[in-house]
Amino acid sequence: MSRQALPIDLSLYLVLDPDLCGGSAGMVATAQQAAASGVTVVQLRAPNWKKRQWLETATALKAALALLNVPLIINDHVDIALAIDADGVHVGQQDMPADEVRRLLGPNKIVGLSTNSLVQFNEAELMYQAGIIDYVGVGPVYPTGTKKDASPVLASDEVNGMMQNRCLPAVAIGGIQAGKVASLIAQGLNGVAVVSAICGKADVTVATHGLLAEIHAARGNTQ
Amino acid sequence: MSRQALPIDLSLYLVLDPDLCGGSAGMVATAQQAAASGVTVVQLRAPNWKKRQWLETATALKAALALLNVPLIINDHVDIALAIDADGVHVGQQDMPADEVRRLLGPNKIVGLSTNSLVQFNEAELMYQAGIIDYVGVGPVYPTGTKKDASPVLASDEVNGMMQNRCLPAVAIGGIQAGKVASLIAQGLNGVAVVSAICGKADVTVATHGLLAEIHAARGNTQ
Repeated sequence: MSRQALPIDLSLYLVLDPDLCGGSAGMVATAQQAAASGVTVVQLRAPNWKKRQWLETATALKAALALLNVPLIINDHVDIALAIDADGVHVGQQDMPADEVRRLLGPNKIVGLSTNSLVQFNEAELMYQAGIIDYVGVGPVYPTGTKKDASPVLASDEVNGMMQNRCLPAVAIGGIQAGKVASLIAQGLNGVAVVSAICGKADVTVATHGLLAEIHAARGNTQ
Repeated sequence: MSRQALPIDLSLYLVLDPDLCGGSAGMVATAQQAAASGVTVVQLRAPNWKKRQWLETATALKAALALLNVPLIINDHVDIALAIDADGVHVGQQDMPADEVRRLLGPNKIVGLSTNSLVQFNEAELMYQAGIIDYVGVGPVYPTGTKKDASPVLASDEVNGMMQNRCLPAVAIGGIQAGKVASLIAQGLNGVAVVSAICGKADVTVATHGLLAEIHAARGNTQ
């Protein structure tokens, strides 16, 4: 496959949580405010929803985010992504295999893959070089309460091992709160994915600006 | 839309249940034996599965059923149907809307829709006439233990009301066991969908033959 990976700014990647945001309307409001405040990617994730609610919420999110030029990534469900012409799909190790996702979505969409070990990360690097995926999630980097079937927390030297000699863009995920961002950026991650650091916060804009400031400061320090 | 509904023999429609069949391998074995014994359609339904298991099991089912010329219908997940080139998709009222399913699958696949009231049935009749769906499920006609979010049981006169002046093919579903088939066929249903009347039975062939004999006898009696 001669496909080149699509450019994607992983700096601050918001994963929406139905419970923390207070349902569909709260998720759209959170996403809109966070995107207007500088979040660079938004993912819709709702493992317990029926597809009717998925479709309705994804449609509303796409309309809100397209105005702000922030890509919308659909967790797991390729059919929802196809139905609303989303910007991409993110899958885990137990979801549809990434090569099948790529085949269904075609070359002009973003495909992301969760990796929870160095072995999975190295497999993902080959998929990146083959044009199958565009980025990986790496985690959990901290204990998380928002993903019930999360893998064990990665050791810091495992993450360091992943960041050596790799081409594929990587976003850290899992329990990332304000104050925990700088070390991940310093380790070489291209960005951080957050859930509860934005979802359910009293002031989403303040929370988003705080995280962005940490990212920018950490990048300044490493340059 | 000028599309004509696809012909589908709804006579004996097997809905596979992961628990009753003992997992993926048991589902494939059950489907193969039931199809070889005269089941006319098989649906894969597994609300709690991750997509990787869906894809693997659907791939195995398709290979087994294609040899027997029995169509494989995928419950809910259009992406799985697209990935394995299944014969069709069945959706409920809270799943992806049927017109969106049709758009994603194209004209040459079967689309089925669950209806649990006369209002829903009449809406479905219009969708059938518009070429969006090919058949409906009608139920539950009896109390069921295999679908946790089942609607209230339909009254017999509701089912009779649905069978008046309709074009769309309809299969009864919900708690249908051996001995309960004849009255449904006499009411005008095109077939019966079963779960526990076949899944988990000690002899799938005997169970299938018994149900088919009831269907044929009831049809003979109504002619």
